[in-house]
Amino acid sequence: MTDQRQLITEMGGKARTAFSRMAGASDAQKASALLAAARHLRDEQDAILAANRQDMENAQKRGLSDALLDRLMIDANRLEAIAAAVEQVARLPDPVGQIIDRTDRPNGLAMARVRVPLGVIGIIYESRPNVTADAAALALRSGNSVILRGGSEAIATNQAIYKAMIGGVEQAGLPTDAMQLVQTTDREAVGAMLKASGLIDIIIPRGGKSLVKRVQDEARVPVLAHLDGICHTYIGKDADPDKAIAIAVNAKMRRTGVCGAMETLLIDQDYPAPGPLLRALIDAGCEVRGDDMIMELDPRTVSAEPEDWDTEYLAPIVAARMVQGLDEALAHIAEHSSNHTDVIVTEDTTMADEFIRRADSAIVMHNASSQFADGGEFGLGAEIGISTGRLHARGPVALEGLTTYKWVVRGTGQVRP
Amino acid sequence: MTDQRQLITEMGGKARTAFSRMAGASDAQKASALLAAARHLRDEQDAILAANRQDMENAQKRGLSDALLDRLMIDANRLEAIAAAVEQVARLPDPVGQIIDRTDRPNGLAMARVRVPLGVIGIIYESRPNVTADAAALALRSGNSVILRGGSEAIATNQAIYKAMIGGVEQAGLPTDAMQLVQTTDREAVGAMLKASGLIDIIIPRGGKSLVKRVQDEARVPVLAHLDGICHTYIGKDADPDKAIAIAVNAKMRRTGVCGAMETLLIDQDYPAPGPLLRALIDAGCEVRGDDMIMELDPRTVSAEPEDWDTEYLAPIVAARMVQGLDEALAHIAEHSSNHTDVIVTEDTTMADEFIRRADSAIVMHNASSQFADGGEFGLGAEIGISTGRLHARGPVALEGLTTYKWVVRGTGQVRP
Repeated sequence: MTDQRQLITEMGGKARTAFSRMAGASDAQKASALLAAARHLRDEQDAILAANRQDMENAQKRGLSDALLDRLMIDANRLEAIAAAVEQVARLPDPVGQIIDRTDRPNGLAMARVRVPLGVIGIIYESRPNVTADAAALALRSGNSVILRGGSEAIATNQAIYKAMIGGVEQAGLPTDAMQLVQTTDREAVGAMLKASGLIDIIIPRGGKSLVKRVQDEARVPVLAHLDGICHTYIGKDADPDKAIAIAVNAKMRRTGVCGAMETLLIDQDYPAPGPLLRALIDAGCEVRGDDMIMELDPRTVSAEPEDWDTEYLAPIVAARMVQGLDEALAHIAEHSSNHTDVIVTEDTTMADEFIRRADSAIVMHNASSQFADGGEFGLGAEIGISTGRLHARGPVALEGLTTYKWVVRGTGQVRP
Repeated sequence: MTDQRQLITEMGGKARTAFSRMAGASDAQKASALLAAARHLRDEQDAILAANRQDMENAQKRGLSDALLDRLMIDANRLEAIAAAVEQVARLPDPVGQIIDRTDRPNGLAMARVRVPLGVIGIIYESRPNVTADAAALALRSGNSVILRGGSEAIATNQAIYKAMIGGVEQAGLPTDAMQLVQTTDREAVGAMLKASGLIDIIIPRGGKSLVKRVQDEARVPVLAHLDGICHTYIGKDADPDKAIAIAVNAKMRRTGVCGAMETLLIDQDYPAPGPLLRALIDAGCEVRGDDMIMELDPRTVSAEPEDWDTEYLAPIVAARMVQGLDEALAHIAEHSSNHTDVIVTEDTTMADEFIRRADSAIVMHNASSQFADGGEFGLGAEIGISTGRLHARGPVALEGLTTYKWVVRGTGQVRP
């Protein structure tokens, strides 16, 4: 066994032992741990910002891009936002102990499914140090043990944030082994986590596509993630033109770098106002890559290549195609969607219902911008990620997604005939 | 790509294409497919029994054990039971389309989680040909595509049963690619299924421990299963002696070969009547392998070896140990349980609640026999298996466990600020 395997095995074993105590922790205990952690984050501001300056200096020396440096950077405002987010998680209702359903059997046995924490959660993330606090808070709020592995460029910041978080855990009398940070920057530790089946119950990668892909390819532990957000908006023939323009421009241009951003626009060939729709997008600064019919509508559009239909631009670019009705729109989506979020814009509610029924995506929307694809917007309070997998939890995943259930059977001495 | 990889890739692709039609199938259509399948099973009795005789002859020539031959054998009565079971599944309520929960957001968006089929389900099983009908019926009832791979010794019977089932699918106008049987007996096909990630969404093994272990070890596709049923019954100090005897004898001896059978008996050292309890078990024909304190109670007990605490006997043998209170019972269970079903017998409801909260098993019971661990007994109608995994579905898994959900967002033109 390599050193890193050994390390992760030890951490996993401790996390699992701590889990049995975490699973029995009260709502109040978990909430108070997070409120205390938030206080520690504020109290230890100087140390955290100093650690971050050290990471930033090293990163600059190593010539990291401005985008990466911005992700890494923490100032007083950002730290306050991190602490406030931890407090917000503390105030979310505890999912543990909720009764999902209950049946009383003719023989007098009462069967109930009761929500319990999931177990040991592994979080593998990149340069954003806020994940250390965010993910740890969500895992702890739902009674789980968590093993955090952040990016090597953020190691000092992560250690400083972790120190504040664990201070809260300690203060609330919860086991500190329930929240562990991998202290090494050795990349082999990630591989060891991905193979720690039996020790880690689920891995949640937080970061760019290459990280998610590596995790999905190598993991022997279940992974909760989405690789791509290739989101479609289909403008039906009966779409309201004002709504179509507002939704398409917002879905693409509000923030182009988020996973819920529209990447492909499908316009029904019988939709009466495709020209103004394309114009609105282009005027908003979007490059439109279209098929032949789209290109005829506006001279500023450029020709789409086959790979455009499978590209997550995360940029002010959209692939656009004319389709013959709902069936062709759904066939395109079935072939090219990453099953994250797909949208229909139409005033025909029957057609909307059919789209909703047949589009096989984690999130399907009618007359709304795909940029709403976010746990906060769904009323979940906070999210650990968005899953395009089909099992366990799908779409935005928050506290409930970090739980499972046990069957509780209460009898009075029943034996089975 | 090997021939078997090629075969499974083709089958998986067809199953996925068929899935989009299955997901939209109506309750009535799915029910009528199964009722028609049951009729076909009865109508084709002669062909099915003839195929089974052929399998039985080959199996006898190959010298298969009597136990295996019994599992393989189908007569008119068993076939009628298979057909009746398919009809029973037809009458179960359709989980697809159920609204799990719904939130209306302040901005007017309505968010709902709606149950949808899981996708493509792979079933890998051994000699029991009834699984061909059972598993196919459950998968179809919940709107999934299914790829069935039975044991090579049952190939002719499976083909005959499959022919009847697919006749029902056809008659109901559902896509026949939604229910496929792997027609080859090449063992490589199993390996190809286990690695068909992206084509098969979940694998459910049905059979002995060696099959389940192989599947769990090799699969790159999520697996829903239990490897062991090492179930504990803890007799608390305040247990009612009559209940203790009735529950322990039933949990061990009703059927010793089922996964919910008790394998370890933990008796509190302050429980006043351990002697009669052991006597009842021994008198019922059970071998008791005990620790030193147990052995002092009855001369007919034998000494337990360390491996006894981790053994699933599936036989009239029980490992028995004295424990000092709830904490030691729970520590033993945490170390040795397979997290299938664990039971406390006590009249102290506070202690029962603590046991229920702290025992980390898929099923925890108070004052009931662990042999109730069965989907039918839980009111689920039928079960595809029992899962000791923590994700997606836990404990007895029936139709609902073969579904996932999509988020449906209904708006009136909302864009995200």
